[in-house]
Amino acid sequence: MLRFTNTRTLQQTSLMKSFLRLQSTVTIPKMQKGVIFYETGGPLHYKDIPVPKPKANEILINVKYSGVCHTDLHAWKGDWPLATKLPLVGGHEGSGEVVAMGENVKGWKIGDLAGIKWLNGSCMSCELCESGHESNCEHADLSGYTHDGSFQQYATADAVQAARIPKGTNMAEVAPILCAGITVYKALKEADMRAGQWVCISGAAGGLGSLAVQYAKAMGYRVIGIDGGPGKEELFKSLGGEIFVDFTKTKDIVAEIQEATRGGPQGVINVSVSEAAISLSTKYVRPTGTVVLVGLPAHSYVKSEVFSHVVKSINIKGSYVGNRADTREALDFFARGLIKSPIKIIGLSELPNVYKLMEEGKILGRYVVDTSK
Amino acid sequence: MLRFTNTRTLQQTSLMKSFLRLQSTVTIPKMQKGVIFYETGGPLHYKDIPVPKPKANEILINVKYSGVCHTDLHAWKGDWPLATKLPLVGGHEGSGEVVAMGENVKGWKIGDLAGIKWLNGSCMSCELCESGHESNCEHADLSGYTHDGSFQQYATADAVQAARIPKGTNMAEVAPILCAGITVYKALKEADMRAGQWVCISGAAGGLGSLAVQYAKAMGYRVIGIDGGPGKEELFKSLGGEIFVDFTKTKDIVAEIQEATRGGPQGVINVSVSEAAISLSTKYVRPTGTVVLVGLPAHSYVKSEVFSHVVKSINIKGSYVGNRADTREALDFFARGLIKSPIKIIGLSELPNVYKLMEEGKILGRYVVDTSK
Amino acid sequence: MLRFTNTRTLQQTSLMKSFLRLQSTVTIPKMQKGVIFYETGGPLHYKDIPVPKPKANEILINVKYSGVCHTDLHAWKGDWPLATKLPLVGGHEGSGEVVAMGENVKGWKIGDLAGIKWLNGSCMSCELCESGHESNCEHADLSGYTHDGSFQQYATADAVQAARIPKGTNMAEVAPILCAGITVYKALKEADMRAGQWVCISGAAGGLGSLAVQYAKAMGYRVIGIDGGPGKEELFKSLGGEIFVDFTKTKDIVAEIQEATRGGPQGVINVSVSEAAISLSTKYVRPTGTVVLVGLPAHSYVKSEVFSHVVKSINIKGSYVGNRADTREALDFFARGLIKSPIKIIGLSELPNVYKLMEEGKILGRYVVDTSK
Amino acid sequence: MLRFTNTRTLQQTSLMKSFLRLQSTVTIPKMQKGVIFYETGGPLHYKDIPVPKPKANEILINVKYSGVCHTDLHAWKGDWPLATKLPLVGGHEGSGEVVAMGENVKGWKIGDLAGIKWLNGSCMSCELCESGHESNCEHADLSGYTHDGSFQQYATADAVQAARIPKGTNMAEVAPILCAGITVYKALKEADMRAGQWVCISGAAGGLGSLAVQYAKAMGYRVIGIDGGPGKEELFKSLGGEIFVDFTKTKDIVAEIQEATRGGPQGVINVSVSEAAISLSTKYVRPTGTVVLVGLPAHSYVKSEVFSHVVKSINIKGSYVGNRADTREALDFFARGLIKSPIKIIGLSELPNVYKLMEEGKILGRYVVDTSK
Repeated sequence: MLRFTNTRTLQQTSLMKSFLRLQSTVTIPKMQKGVIFYETGGPLHYKDIPVPKPKANEILINVKYSGVCHTDLHAWKGDWPLATKLPLVGGHEGSGEVVAMGENVKGWKIGDLAGIKWLNGSCMSCELCESGHESNCEHADLSGYTHDGSFQQYATADAVQAARIPKGTNMAEVAPILCAGITVYKALKEADMRAGQWVCISGAAGGLGSLAVQYAKAMGYRVIGIDGGPGKEELFKSLGGEIFVDFTKTKDIVAEIQEATRGGPQGVINVSVSEAAISLSTKYVRPTGTVVLVGLPAHSYVKSEVFSHVVKSINIKGSYVGNRADTREALDFFARGLIKSPIKIIGLSELPNVYKLMEEGKILGRYVVDTSK
Repeated sequence: MLRFTNTRTLQQTSLMKSFLRLQSTVTIPKMQKGVIFYETGGPLHYKDIPVPKPKANEILINVKYSGVCHTDLHAWKGDWPLATKLPLVGGHEGSGEVVAMGENVKGWKIGDLAGIKWLNGSCMSCELCESGHESNCEHADLSGYTHDGSFQQYATADAVQAARIPKGTNMAEVAPILCAGITVYKALKEADMRAGQWVCISGAAGGLGSLAVQYAKAMGYRVIGIDGGPGKEELFKSLGGEIFVDFTKTKDIVAEIQEATRGGPQGVINVSVSEAAISLSTKYVRPTGTVVLVGLPAHSYVKSEVFSHVVKSINIKGSYVGNRADTREALDFFARGLIKSPIKIIGLSELPNVYKLMEEGKILGRYVVDTSK
Repeated sequence: MLRFTNTRTLQQTSLMKSFLRLQSTVTIPKMQKGVIFYETGGPLHYKDIPVPKPKANEILINVKYSGVCHTDLHAWKGDWPLATKLPLVGGHEGSGEVVAMGENVKGWKIGDLAGIKWLNGSCMSCELCESGHESNCEHADLSGYTHDGSFQQYATADAVQAARIPKGTNMAEVAPILCAGITVYKALKEADMRAGQWVCISGAAGGLGSLAVQYAKAMGYRVIGIDGGPGKEELFKSLGGEIFVDFTKTKDIVAEIQEATRGGPQGVINVSVSEAAISLSTKYVRPTGTVVLVGLPAHSYVKSEVFSHVVKSINIKGSYVGNRADTREALDFFARGLIKSPIKIIGLSELPNVYKLMEEGKILGRYVVDTSK
Repeated sequence: MLRFTNTRTLQQTSLMKSFLRLQSTVTIPKMQKGVIFYETGGPLHYKDIPVPKPKANEILINVKYSGVCHTDLHAWKGDWPLATKLPLVGGHEGSGEVVAMGENVKGWKIGDLAGIKWLNGSCMSCELCESGHESNCEHADLSGYTHDGSFQQYATADAVQAARIPKGTNMAEVAPILCAGITVYKALKEADMRAGQWVCISGAAGGLGSLAVQYAKAMGYRVIGIDGGPGKEELFKSLGGEIFVDFTKTKDIVAEIQEATRGGPQGVINVSVSEAAISLSTKYVRPTGTVVLVGLPAHSYVKSEVFSHVVKSINIKGSYVGNRADTREALDFFARGLIKSPIKIIGLSELPNVYKLMEEGKILGRYVVDTSK
């Protein structure tokens, strides 16, 4: 197996070690195209940058496509308490092919399809990593945040955390699954429901919501969705949703949801970032049910009335990004054709414009960049 | 077996049906002593009232002792949204002996020790009852609230829900276990922890807290407690607590708890009714840990910051009173001598004074009334 | 609400108590048609027998249809260690309407659709009942075994355990769901799987197996089935099965299943009663997976090699009939149209012939008797 | 931090990189003492062998003590289906200090206390590793079996799997915890019980059993033990056991256990390697309880009668060695002083005699070798 040690001697080593593996030998350039910024909120440059070298535990992925997520905007603008690395290449929804790997990597081979996700790597040794909560690890390394991400043609990823994409997968459409898809799938798992029960998706017609509806359907749940505006109900129902509540039309959301589901949904997935909508979900959830928090509105609080929280015995549970198992499972549902991921493909060189659109709140749908353009 | 059908023919029927069971035949008077009030907040009368008749599904318990709980005060004053029956005999921590039973009762016999608890009965047929959440049943019948309770010498209880008290149990000391003990034990179960993990009891030196510390210890947890004032730490440690945080002395509760437990407790039991203390527990709980709400401060909200709730993946869970299994288990720990329940015994006739003390906030410790005095 | 106390005064009482409820008043005859036998293995009589009276905790159901199950044959022949009542009216898959109820019944009203299932009633007070394992209760009362069952026009059932059939349900087709459907649904729950995982149904094309395939599909599982003979694969795939293993054709069942599922199914449901097939399932189940035992071959043992049982960390779990929650959920899947239940309807008077066919092993498909014929 | 790359330049690199870390610099010799064999069942040599070099992902541990386990005998004799590496240094219960580490190691520093356990490393990428079942990984690397173990002064271990031993731990006594302790602790977790429930330890007075009794007690379980012979009951009770069943004296083990525990223990831990004892445990376990298989008798089967397995709804679960979380937790119980580990310390040079004693079945108690002698 080709193991990366030094770009200069790479082909030479490979030749010496294995004549028979010539076909999997890949020529890796020294420079590549990428979008990089040098200071928080500073100019976004589409330019030639060096190809990174994988560490002993990393794979090098030739990124074909990368989804663009609002988190990329937050990282660039420095909205969150945690500082990013600088300069930074953003992106955490990258799909591509393994072209090299560090000497300590197990279980991957050149040519495998791989994905770069938000959690690039973690310590694997702390109490949280031990129990499958790698995303919550204090030493989590984050793609497009503390580790250069997928807005470049070649990116590195920890071999243990990198996503394994099944052969034959549509590489452009799978990109948003690597963050948005895994996140909503994980949230649905955290709701701890059984097939046949009701789940409410608050923000059902948006990017995360559309995926959540489909995953929920594939998991055997009955789906009620909340969103507002024209065309939303049609979209929701075309994805498998059963009952739609238009918050621009209903007078009493709580009453409508509880009646439609005969007592409230057993689970609620809050992908909406409205603070009011989040707190409202503690009122319509079914007794002993679970409200899952996923969306990350800035400086916001979920408020729940203690008396009814106790008497109804409800849960409010935070769900962060998925772990290795969540990733494999979410990709498997996609690979089986159960999840549609509508995207708009543009060239990587056009990415700075997408940041601008996001900042202006003008973005519609999910953009995916093609790194070859 | 003696089965109650009609008080007038009771002894006659019993004689005809079973000469051999003469020893278990009990003479039940028509009148008894009890404390009753006729209007919300009105006078509390210690007087002669009729002995209730058990329905087909009920047992009649000769109450020996009953604990007095703050809920009894709330019921009398009408503090809660749900109306009580009127007139009302309060009390929901009664211990006594089965003296008669309805014709449909299974699994009890005359002379068995039985307990009256908050949940007197439930429908047993709804989705919540089906899954062991009888306390959350919409049709829950509540002792000392919607059903005459244990502040009388003879009280009825649904045979399915009545607590089974093991032989040889101290009948006065067990009384507070029937509400306070079960409630904290259930909350500890809801925290979903493993032996060896840290649980924080917020309000550790009070009535509920003292029991919670002991149950936690018996369940193999390590206990950190929060409370304030002189003598509290000694009490806490004498019950098996390991680390005490005095909120009147510490400058940074969150930092102190997280350091002492190396990252925060896996579970928190909020028996304190301070709104600020409850919301604070969402900050010091360990990532992926569970904050349990038990105490019922009026008109209060738990507030949790969404960003850290998600990134730390914590859970806020309401825990109401225990079900049949929780009851049996909590009583079993007590019967095995693992839980001490310090009480002050007074006569039932003195109960109106205890209501007064509670109203004035002057009560100290747990009062138990002896119904024979 | 009409409550049954005494058949002679029933209409009179009902008239006095509620003129407004006239429409729900039902005339209950004293005699009815039923199939009864007086000694184990003795003649089966289709004849006039008295209508039973509901106890305080029971409802009286006017049975419209009843499924016929092999258990009915075992009960009649006395095949099992537990003695039946005698004389006995068999049947434990009855669907009908509530026509009267005992005075202690809650949550039912005249005209509700109700089902008679194997577990007629249980003590509701023991440790097993407390935790939702009512079927395992030592005092379980069994329809068509220790309690007269559904092979009659009017049958009694404990109000707590009787199945609640949603309005609009096809009353003939729902009959087999009340035993076979609930049983396989419960077994699938016990396999403790997640949507997207593989479940193997051993005996996939039989009566129980056909239902199991459909429930598994509705729960989001991927289904691999084992059975043998012509037409079985087509049936299996028409029900939603994905991979079929014909044991009459394959050389290595273990290898074939493990390859098709990339490591073995996470769960196996053994509805087949072949001892060899059951033990074989411990070999092809995925590491850490669960083998569920459902079928009841007489005098048979499941054998599992200790070394691989430990190193693969597998489970072998027994699943008996469903509880109240399992019942409601299984019926809900059926009512939503996700489960097809192919049946052959005959008159109750023809039932003795069906016993004969079962005894001769000539039965094909599921018979349902119409009690009106 | 000192990172191991090449023994010849080790000190030089360390000097260049960090003058301030001089105190943590350790001189690692090229040769060391170890016990090695070159062919299965061949002579065991106590001799000078090279110190191994840690790979990028490994730590190098200066082994102070190592427990001796029957598995070491099996490895040497080639008793199991899986081939060992050859030549082989055995041992998988080693305690020592980190003296060097590969360049990819995170979360360890020179001088940390570390343990070598049966699972030296795993792929961390497969479906089993993902979900915390690293022991079941197809690519598991086993200390003293497929990877040179702890019967030498310096041994390597995967940094992710190596046990973290708390400071201040008794390094000789902790050795057996690293295999025997973790194994029984894991088995107790797998029994899926609650505090206050009964667990039966079959083989309660042996090496594994003695540890199991103590862990069970610390987890809040009530312990019933089975073993035979003089002095066993006293030992059992001194460790916290509550009820002892001497199989050499009782006539009916099943009846005695079920009576003592009022229905059977909720969990059974089979550390005994008697095939008959293992199958018997399926008879006395409580309905809905769990029989855990831990001991590994050669060519043995657990047999369970299908009818009662289903009607009692029991589970038979295999439990292999612990994962990272199990390891940390089991060590924490030991470090807190809740588990006593009686050992006999001998020199590493005497180890060949211990193999001989084990082969002759003459071993009594747990031997621990001191690698300095």
